[in-house]
Amino acid sequence: MKHQCLFCGIVAGDIPSVKVFEDDTTYAFMDINPASDGHLLVIPKRHSKDLLEIEGEDLADVTLAAQRIAKAVVKEFGADGVNLLNCCGADAWQTVFHFHLHVIPRYVDKTKDRLVLPWQPGMGGDKATMAALGDRLAAAIS
Amino acid sequence: MKHQCLFCGIVAGDIPSVKVFEDDTTYAFMDINPASDGHLLVIPKRHSKDLLEIEGEDLADVTLAAQRIAKAVVKEFGADGVNLLNCCGADAWQTVFHFHLHVIPRYVDKTKDRLVLPWQPGMGGDKATMAALGDRLAAAIS
Repeated sequence: MKHQCLFCGIVAGDIPSVKVFEDDTTYAFMDINPASDGHLLVIPKRHSKDLLEIEGEDLADVTLAAQRIAKAVVKEFGADGVNLLNCCGADAWQTVFHFHLHVIPRYVDKTKDRLVLPWQPGMGGDKATMAALGDRLAAAIS
Repeated sequence: MKHQCLFCGIVAGDIPSVKVFEDDTTYAFMDINPASDGHLLVIPKRHSKDLLEIEGEDLADVTLAAQRIAKAVVKEFGADGVNLLNCCGADAWQTVFHFHLHVIPRYVDKTKDRLVLPWQPGMGGDKATMAALGDRLAAAIS
């Protein structure tokens, strides 16, 4: 295989994709396993594995492109909402290890929308644990 | 109520929160209904309703703060992965209408992680529909 990374192959045009948008630093294309009608991915052209590795400027560019596309999705498809999702690491459902941001149009019409709620509020986690973890993280960041 | 918006009240300090991080434009605090241990929210200090309304510079700032926090979450909590999630619109699971980006640490240890996969790859959507929607969106954006 010419490209070790599937998405680098897509950016180079060696692997086909349905392109939605492209600028100097970002590339957007339809997800081949859509969770909803119009589900697409925005990626940086420059390879980076995940959220922990991506350069800040690429991350900002990808996110702003995703916003622009989200607006178009609502206007063009009449979507009732949009989710942005990034999966960082195999244990967070990442399957292709080139950073990508999912743009997932949402619809009241469930024939176009196959998502289920990823968690139920109040499923667990007590207030004391939450506060302790928050304090620990705040100290680690500052 | 002094603040019409819950998260504006948190930013102002009038409503309590477990603060994790703060800078000139962003504020991060623990989610009171955590989907996993360490689940938190990053918001812009300046009010905007959602992804469609937020100013680009606030969106970039929030996303870069989320990346910084994600790195700390992996290092400090030993998280096995991280999800970033934005919900835009009630039909996309948004419940507080001040833009927020979820930072959700993920763990192999399911006592700390209560998420379920929000969709199954291959649940639906044929290639022809995907291509047609992609072409339509590309034309709308360009």
